[in-house]
Order: sequence, then structure tokens, then C-alpha cells
Amino acid sequence: MHAPSEILKYIEQAIKNTTYPSHPGSLYEPISYIMGLGGKRLRPVMLLMSADLFGGDLQAAVPAAMAIETFHNFTLIHDDIMDNAPLRRGQQTVHEKWGRNTAILSGDVMMVEANKHITRVDIAVLKPALDTFNATAQGVCEGQQLDMEFESRNDVSIEEYIDMIRLKTAVLVGGAMKLGAIVAHARMPDADLIYQFGENLGIAFQLQDDILDVYGDPEKFGKRVGGDIISDKKTFLRLKLQQLASQEDLRKLSDLVRAADTDKISQVTALYDRYLIKEEATVMMQYYLHKAFAALSDIQVPEERKRELILLADLLMNRES
Amino acid sequence: MHAPSEILKYIEQAIKNTTYPSHPGSLYEPISYIMGLGGKRLRPVMLLMSADLFGGDLQAAVPAAMAIETFHNFTLIHDDIMDNAPLRRGQQTVHEKWGRNTAILSGDVMMVEANKHITRVDIAVLKPALDTFNATAQGVCEGQQLDMEFESRNDVSIEEYIDMIRLKTAVLVGGAMKLGAIVAHARMPDADLIYQFGENLGIAFQLQDDILDVYGDPEKFGKRVGGDIISDKKTFLRLKLQQLASQEDLRKLSDLVRAADTDKISQVTALYDRYLIKEEATVMMQYYLHKAFAALSDIQVPEERKRELILLADLLMNRES
Repeated sequence: MHAPSEILKYIEQAIKNTTYPSHPGSLYEPISYIMGLGGKRLRPVMLLMSADLFGGDLQAAVPAAMAIETFHNFTLIHDDIMDNAPLRRGQQTVHEKWGRNTAILSGDVMMVEANKHITRVDIAVLKPALDTFNATAQGVCEGQQLDMEFESRNDVSIEEYIDMIRLKTAVLVGGAMKLGAIVAHARMPDADLIYQFGENLGIAFQLQDDILDVYGDPEKFGKRVGGDIISDKKTFLRLKLQQLASQEDLRKLSDLVRAADTDKISQVTALYDRYLIKEEATVMMQYYLHKAFAALSDIQVPEERKRELILLADLLMNRES
Repeated sequence: MHAPSEILKYIEQAIKNTTYPSHPGSLYEPISYIMGLGGKRLRPVMLLMSADLFGGDLQAAVPAAMAIETFHNFTLIHDDIMDNAPLRRGQQTVHEKWGRNTAILSGDVMMVEANKHITRVDIAVLKPALDTFNATAQGVCEGQQLDMEFESRNDVSIEEYIDMIRLKTAVLVGGAMKLGAIVAHARMPDADLIYQFGENLGIAFQLQDDILDVYGDPEKFGKRVGGDIISDKKTFLRLKLQQLASQEDLRKLSDLVRAADTDKISQVTALYDRYLIKEEATVMMQYYLHKAFAALSDIQVPEERKRELILLADLLMNRES
């Protein structure tokens, strides 16, 4: 079994070894640019760890890992256009740097590059790998659409929210891990279980993100604490508060929409505290985390092979940024 | 051998039989919408005719045809965003009807749908089919990028222009026909020859488009004759004129940029006439048409099997709209 830090080297090496055509330059430069911005490479690492779990050859799993990481970065380019985001990982977004049209088109050709990566898996597993990859890609698009639609809706339920983050974030983690299992020639029931592990872990991860955005340590969080509150983002915390708050507090909450940032953060956080929203969110997060570990424990491989994955999951769930 | 009109029925039926998820509605409605706007279905028809040429089962070629038509329509959604186009086939464009962000994302998920179609080909040819499909998709993106870049460049050569239309338009016709050959289990040299036929026919087709835009019969053309002149589009005709015209006529041409539409059309057309630009374009078109037919004649199937394809190519090259 390989530790995440060793596995990361496979990914970084593969990214470094991947070249794109030089012409037209402005179509391909954004791809190298965004792939080079770094990040935790969580999805491809999880994919290779899944392959490792099932005794697969790591190098043989790299094309699938590159497909997932390339697809993920493509979605970042398009999401940033849709969100009018100026920065990504502290650097200019692609559409800021090259213009909106080139960002659309570079994203499109990047999806083709992702598709090309996935065709390089062992031909014996090509069909199931494609099916998993396409289902994953489709889910992510659905999640992004729901996320955009929720911005203008005032009746989003917690169930709908969980389904949205499942599609937008967790399906890609689950899909990556299922791909890792497939390229390692795991049995299908085990591939489905590792999908469940990844998907539920992904949901827990996103719920933790919602918590950190309010309760993170400003010194360690990396982004401004309270960003979701300022933008009135319908996170789990906000939706839960809307469900539990008294009429009076709901009125107060809706008056806060126009409050100054610092005021708004402190007063919404006070409401969260009053209704124990952090605790509600933590319970929910634990629920999905337990589902994830239950799926992992059902997988038919020796327990010691699961150690690195369990360590990584613990690390992820105890992060501060 | 089947006539194009019979083959079209397979495509229309497949489009009718294809359903998309109902949720999120606004993600999938644009797909049904643009697929339902009609058009000549030229690319999937050419694909099935290619399969037919090589004795393939038409029904078995339908998934590849759907992949190509779905991919083509996806590019229309994104191209229309980039061009700020209000209308497509006389109807509102997707971004006009659903907004820009949904148009980006519907396009993205439509590409996933195209990818799903291509995975449904016979598994024995899945890998070459994917390779051809991805290379085709990549070429189309490159062509669109070059087309956009040419708008702001004043030194586009005719060679570069031909390469741009090859990528933007012709690669998709060639790729469609190669896919038809692959799913019909044609020999690889024949698949490459039918690609050459399609690509060269595609270039000829686009050159004819450039000619029709200036010299088409206003009663039959469907669009406003002179549209390319009004928008100063760098077509083959315009680039050839810039190559041949005297200094004086070049000055005249650049002064016409600010002229009123009707004036501009008549005066640029007069310059085209003076330098025999229509004849130059026709010679170039014939050159690519001959290359197309030379490739077709090298294909190792009985000559009578090629009849429908030759008829269709003749029909396309003698169209008035």
C-alpha cells in the first residue's frame, strides 16, 4: 500500500509529462495553466488509492486519474465563467486572463483531452470505465445546474441541498474511486462499495466545508471566514437555520441581507449558535462519514489494505482549510 | 445501398427515440430543443452512407451517427454564445432562451451525451471509434478557436484560412465518414480514404458557401446575400482579393469598411468581379472536390456501391442554399 504522498508523485509526474498541441496556442495554454495551478489533487489521489486497495498497478491507473483531474479542472474553468470569479487558487481565472470565449472553448477541448485520457485504460475494462466516467461527468453538470438554480430559489429543502452537493462534489469522488477499482479489475460489488465510500465521504467533506466557512480558524482557513454568510449562500447551515428559527429570528435573518459584512457575519453566526446549527451540521456530517466507513468495511479485501484510505479520510475530516 | 432520404429516416427516428433525464429540466430542455430544430443532418447521413458503402448494418451505425449529430449540435450552442448570435435555424438560440450560463452547461452535458452515444458502438471497434471521435472533436474546437482569432488578425493567409475551415467544418465530415467505416468493420486503409473523401468534400462545401454568400440567388439562398461582406468576414474570396488587388483597390476596400450595407455589398462584389475572384474560388473548390473523388475512387468496394455517395456529393455541390 502506498501513502497519499507517494501517490501524489505519480499524479504530478503524469501532469508534467502531458503535453498539448502548440497550435492554436491560446486554446491550449489555458489547459497547462489551470492544470499547473496545483491544488490537493484529491480526486486522482483517491482514484489511485482505490486502485491500490484492490491490488492494481498504479501506473496502469494513471490514465483514469488524469481523465478525472483533467475533467475536474475543465469544470473549474466553466464554473468560474458562470460565477464571474476573478480568482482561482489565488491566481487569475482563465476567462479573466484569456477572455470568456477562449475560456469556453479551452474548457471544451479540455473535456476532449479528459476523454482521450480515459480511452488509454486497459481495453478489457474500457467499456465499464467509460460508462463510469460519463455517468460521473453527467452528475457533475447536473449538480452545477442545481447549484445555479438554488441561487434564485427561496424554497430549497435540505434534502435538495444534499442531493445538489452529492451531484456537484461527491459523485466525482465516488466516480474517481470506482474508476480506480475498475482499472484494478476489482469485482463489481466492490467497485460499487468503493463508490459508496467516495460519494458519502464527498458529502461529509462538503458539509465540513460549510462548517469551516463559518467556524474555521481565520489564521488557517485560507479564505475569508464568513464568505458564505456574506453572499447569502444556501449552505446546510443556512437552510437548517431557516428550518429551526422562530418567526422573529427569520425576520431578523432576512433583514440582515442588507447589513454590512462584519455585522452580518457576527449576527448570523450568533443565530447559528443560538439554534446549535454547528452541532446539527456535525451530526449530518458524521452520518455520511459513517455511511462511507460502513461501505469501506464491507469491501472484501484484507483490513490492513484499507489503512491508508482510513488515515486519509481522517486527515481530510480533521482539516482546518 | 440506401438513398439519403431513406437514411435520414434512421436518424430522425433515433433522435425521436432519444430521451434525456427530466431533472434538472433547464439543463436538458435545451438539448431536446436544439436537436429538434432540424437541419440537413448532413453529418450523420454521411456517416450512415459510409457504413452502407462498406456493407455495414445501418442500425448498428446509428449510435455513432447520434454521437456525431449530438456533438455537432453541442458546438452550435457554444458557438452561438461566442458569436452572440440571436438566431439559429430561424429560432432563438439556446443562450437567448435560457441564459448564457445554462447554455454553457447544457452544452457541456450535451458533449457527455455525445460521449455516451459513442460508447454504444460494437465493443470490437470501440477503441478506434473513440480515437476517431475524440480526434474529430479536438479538431473542431481548434477550428473554432482559429476562426475567432482570425477576426482580429489582418495577416491571415489563404493557407491558414483553408486549414481553419478544414478543422472547423471538414474534419467533422471526414470524422463522421471514418466512423461509419469503422463501425462497418471496413479495412483501415479504406476508413482513411473515406476520411479523405469527407474532409476534402467538407472543404469544397465551405468554399462553395463562401461563393454562395456573395453570388447566391437571393430568392433561394435563405440568408441575406452579402452577409459575409457586411461583417468583413475573412472568407476565401476576401483573402484572395486582398492578395490580387492593386494598392489603389486595397485602399478602396479598406475605406469600404465604414460604408452603408448596400453600397458595401455592391462595391466589394464589383471588386470581386474585376479580379475574377468567383472563378478563383471555383477553381479552389474544384481542386478539393477532385481530391475527394480521387480518394473515393481508391476505395476497394465495387463501383456501383459508390453511386449514392457520388449523387449526394453532386447534389451538395450544386445546391443554391
